[in-house]
Amino acid sequence: MPDTKQIRITECGPRDGLQNEATILSVDQKVALIDLLSASGVAEIEVSSFVSPTWVPQLADAEQVFARISRRDSVVYSALVPNEEGMRRAMDAKIDKIAIFTAASETFSRKNTNATIAQTLRRFEPVVAQAKDVDLPVRAYISCVVTCPYEGPIDPRQVRDVASQLLDLGVDEIDLGETIGVAVPTDIDRLYEGLAGLLEPGQTTLHLHDTRGTALACALRALQLGVTSFDSSCGGLGGCPYAPNAAGNLATEDLVYLCNRMGYETSVDLAALFAASRHIAAALGRSLPGRVFTADGSAPP
Amino acid sequence: MPDTKQIRITECGPRDGLQNEATILSVDQKVALIDLLSASGVAEIEVSSFVSPTWVPQLADAEQVFARISRRDSVVYSALVPNEEGMRRAMDAKIDKIAIFTAASETFSRKNTNATIAQTLRRFEPVVAQAKDVDLPVRAYISCVVTCPYEGPIDPRQVRDVASQLLDLGVDEIDLGETIGVAVPTDIDRLYEGLAGLLEPGQTTLHLHDTRGTALACALRALQLGVTSFDSSCGGLGGCPYAPNAAGNLATEDLVYLCNRMGYETSVDLAALFAASRHIAAALGRSLPGRVFTADGSAPP
Repeated sequence: MPDTKQIRITECGPRDGLQNEATILSVDQKVALIDLLSASGVAEIEVSSFVSPTWVPQLADAEQVFARISRRDSVVYSALVPNEEGMRRAMDAKIDKIAIFTAASETFSRKNTNATIAQTLRRFEPVVAQAKDVDLPVRAYISCVVTCPYEGPIDPRQVRDVASQLLDLGVDEIDLGETIGVAVPTDIDRLYEGLAGLLEPGQTTLHLHDTRGTALACALRALQLGVTSFDSSCGGLGGCPYAPNAAGNLATEDLVYLCNRMGYETSVDLAALFAASRHIAAALGRSLPGRVFTADGSAPP
Repeated sequence: MPDTKQIRITECGPRDGLQNEATILSVDQKVALIDLLSASGVAEIEVSSFVSPTWVPQLADAEQVFARISRRDSVVYSALVPNEEGMRRAMDAKIDKIAIFTAASETFSRKNTNATIAQTLRRFEPVVAQAKDVDLPVRAYISCVVTCPYEGPIDPRQVRDVASQLLDLGVDEIDLGETIGVAVPTDIDRLYEGLAGLLEPGQTTLHLHDTRGTALACALRALQLGVTSFDSSCGGLGGCPYAPNAAGNLATEDLVYLCNRMGYETSVDLAALFAASRHIAAALGRSLPGRVFTADGSAPP
């Protein structure tokens, strides 16, 4: 077990979660969610996305949401930024950190962003430069790090190649997205073996989906390898566009439960997190798939 | 990773799963389930229980079910046997293996079987002796190996103590039941450290519940330690009497998906297993919580 016991959790429910929900919530409902998440102790919250509202109507109100949340000094509030126009909006909204996104799969990149991987990287060049100018940290997502819904299994060398180019651009953090939730622990080994010498596991963030129930087993393997930063969404909010009935992101409660009970420190309070998940379940009018959240009321003796 | 790549799966849906369902199914429905499970390639099926029908009305038809299933030579058909009367019924039904059950928690034993642990062991003495006489293998379940719903955390030495007495009785196999689904991987380490010198991990079966989403992460840890035999239920059938809305046993599909993709051999065909889960979901008129089953129709590329 690695020495580092502090685990950083980025709550991505308000962005990655809600983006995959059919229901469009009000600004009030989103602000309430984010304020409850702030109170739970998560390290970072991905608040929204400054992509075009025609692309993601669920998150068209990014400015209003940023203007009305109650910010805490202990929490980093970030958002997706797709291009220079998005960067202008993000800076006006005074966000703490930006997130750019590309993929390890050419087909996914073209279908998801209408651009080749190389084009996305060129598009992000001025964005990252501008962020550097104003000391704004930059996270870079790489989607499909294990499997692409169109191309199938992805060679870890493709992930390494894209990560290397992103580091050359000057990004501060690489977030490895297991976009469709097919990974098993041996895939996590291969992913990090592929990054050896370029990025240590402890320098990355891992983004898992629980589509096939393997997210927490993959998180365990990542913890064993030294990963200390994870994305997750409260209650397992979200879903998978490639598996209509499936669970969404790894549920924050499940990750926190595992980490806290294994002796890692997440600084997250489960009861406070439940309040956020309860709020969003009510707002969406549906149950959420997270196991710990679902078993709520039966806290372990 | 240990050398042994063959994983033995005991499908416990028809017994542990159905026992925790409110709906009582017909003999026909149970026989269809078991026949579909036989076709899926699982190594063993826990068919029913020869406990008193007043205790478990869901399984009152054990004789009829055993009489009507289509047995395959490759599958071991077992059932719970609580006492000598149950043993008589089990032998009349020509079952392949019997399962006896006690607990690592005195309170759980008293509440669940109305007997102290010592009393259950004495009660099983003639049952095991009789099984030995006719060369019938005996599995012994120990419940609450990590936490008891009444007593809280269980000292691994209690598990060792009970396991040791069961081995003295002459049982062939110890099945470690994490009854309420609270375990995290470090609990699995402590459990097996407690058994060191008495039982190697590869000599045990592990029975996990997914109440808090940690079952597959615990299974991964167990695989790393050398465990090669697991209980699970198709679709995650069942539930937890101590957490009304919670998921049930570790879903067989989730375990098989993880094992098969990690290079272990389960001999289970996922598509055939889906047929069993679909049948039982329809019979119960409810969805099942297993993640892979829920994501069915979106097989990984």
